[in-house]
Amino acid sequence: MGFKDILSFDERGLIPAIAQDKETGRILMVAWMNHEALTKTIQTKQAVYFSRSRCKLWHKGEESGHVQHVHEIRTDCDGDVILLTVTQEQQIACHTGRTSCFYKRLDWETQTWEAVDPVMKDPKDIYHHE
Amino acid sequence: MGFKDILSFDERGLIPAIAQDKETGRILMVAWMNHEALTKTIQTKQAVYFSRSRCKLWHKGEESGHVQHVHEIRTDCDGDVILLTVTQEQQIACHTGRTSCFYKRLDWETQTWEAVDPVMKDPKDIYHHE
Repeated sequence: MGFKDILSFDERGLIPAIAQDKETGRILMVAWMNHEALTKTIQTKQAVYFSRSRCKLWHKGEESGHVQHVHEIRTDCDGDVILLTVTQEQQIACHTGRTSCFYKRLDWETQTWEAVDPVMKDPKDIYHHE
Repeated sequence: MGFKDILSFDERGLIPAIAQDKETGRILMVAWMNHEALTKTIQTKQAVYFSRSRCKLWHKGEESGHVQHVHEIRTDCDGDVILLTVTQEQQIACHTGRTSCFYKRLDWETQTWEAVDPVMKDPKDIYHHE
């Protein structure tokens, strides 16, 4: 039995994957994987996702250098979510230059979202498009 | 502008929600919310999800007593995932009686999933169906 047999990929052939920082426990991001992305993640021990917008494999950090080194892979009781424990290169997972993509916190009083985490690096210095 | 305006609910009107333990940082579970579930979560400061199988609101712990007290709500850069920081009643989030639903770890060598976390309470003693 292959390791993918207990996993529930959705009708698009995708499964959500959470990346959690090994040291801090922070949740860095959530992305998607297909069979091939998961296989490559296991083979390379670096996070490889499937980009829904670009419709192709996305080796996290391929452009930014913000690679995620994978220490552990888990799934849940239903087998419909993947959890990666990672070391995040340069401590920046988010394309906004922040450590985590989860930087917007709900203010209970005003019921508005507030960006509460600092930008560690200007995105212009992360991505160098022609 | 309402707090839901920056959120991306999918074509079913749902958004995935991750529950993370406030003290340990462990990811406890992933479930789904619709507008109403999120509103009730904010109002009650207890996690309310939308059960896809039962097609109705699911006040986590309504049967088991394993309520999740919500301290903080975040969303990510895309606004398509919710992150709850919670205190988990009785430290059991999973219906299998484990602390976390993410108890299956991939063994790199054998490429099989292994249940690596202990059952804290027999599910028969959690759910009392007639």
